[in-house]
Amino acid sequence: MNSNVPGVTVQRLPIYLSCLERLPADQERVSSDELAVLAGVTPAKVRKDLSYLGSFGVRGVGYEIDHLRFQIRIELGLEEEWPVVIVGAGHLGKALARYDGFVDHGFDVVGLFDIDPAKIGSKLDGLVVEPLSDLKRSIRARGATIGIVTTPAAAAQETAEVLGAAGIRSILNFAPVVIKPPEGVDVRRVDLSTELQVLSFYLHRRRNEE
Amino acid sequence: MNSNVPGVTVQRLPIYLSCLERLPADQERVSSDELAVLAGVTPAKVRKDLSYLGSFGVRGVGYEIDHLRFQIRIELGLEEEWPVVIVGAGHLGKALARYDGFVDHGFDVVGLFDIDPAKIGSKLDGLVVEPLSDLKRSIRARGATIGIVTTPAAAAQETAEVLGAAGIRSILNFAPVVIKPPEGVDVRRVDLSTELQVLSFYLHRRRNEE
Repeated sequence: MNSNVPGVTVQRLPIYLSCLERLPADQERVSSDELAVLAGVTPAKVRKDLSYLGSFGVRGVGYEIDHLRFQIRIELGLEEEWPVVIVGAGHLGKALARYDGFVDHGFDVVGLFDIDPAKIGSKLDGLVVEPLSDLKRSIRARGATIGIVTTPAAAAQETAEVLGAAGIRSILNFAPVVIKPPEGVDVRRVDLSTELQVLSFYLHRRRNEE
Repeated sequence: MNSNVPGVTVQRLPIYLSCLERLPADQERVSSDELAVLAGVTPAKVRKDLSYLGSFGVRGVGYEIDHLRFQIRIELGLEEEWPVVIVGAGHLGKALARYDGFVDHGFDVVGLFDIDPAKIGSKLDGLVVEPLSDLKRSIRARGATIGIVTTPAAAAQETAEVLGAAGIRSILNFAPVVIKPPEGVDVRRVDLSTELQVLSFYLHRRRNEE
């Protein structure tokens, strides 16, 4: 892999991959123009981003889709397995534990934890909600590398500390609060309202034009 | 509002807003450099994006945070109320119905619908799960403009058609499937695995460097 890929390109690789996965199964090639429209960026940006992967489209022919998908998956590390634990077995935690899109990309939810005795022991597909006190042991035993935080806001920071102390190096935070990253841990926050804000921009514009 | 804001800038406005909301409450100004680091883009891009809002930082001083937040909120239409209905009262639908981040941005969930008789009538905070057959009437009565689809993949397209026929103009699709937009309806898809893919890139790189 190329360790010089800029952060902004890394952010767009999952978007390109998602666009490629939505193309008709019998389509073999895609042009930078077509991919640009699907991804909402300029064709020049598509070509620049993909050049970091050593992938260059052929003028008038485009990119070979299967090969490009494979290159992006390799670059994103999606050809490896990433065991994931989720802390917070509320509605969102349960929804994520069952989310098909994770498994498709190599993310296997191997544990779901909570502190609420009423939730501990309840079953969800193949998972059983486990007590937070078992987190460290479970993470080590199952080789988990990524933790997802879906606790209430007030518990998120402490949860991140526990995950960091247990050896987790990457945290995805869905709690509506900023987590200060524990030493040596990457934290990314997901704000589920982001896409709604983009929708409201277009609704707002349409309303003003009518 | 400026109707010439490019789509790629629109996508970044919620990110800037989220960064501004995370700054310490007593901070009054932010530089394009600081905002660029928080948002993961270049300072030049920050300045270009914000110039579409008529917002120009003062060299050596930066942007006045409260004013910039207000300008972005106006541009995104967040100073208006957007009643939202959710179809699919599974774990994800329920999690979104209770998600604090929506209300904070003017998105008020006014209805939660399902076809499952076992779910209809169950209560979730102030909401009662309603039958899909009431959707059209409820959307009109409550002035909903945005629909969120959290059904299983197989039901997503039909749900979008029903929402479109009932007057919804914007759909946010969480179902793991591509929806063909009904006539006159914007559809955006959310892939919850996107951020995990970015995390795995960095884990993958770190693993290769060790």
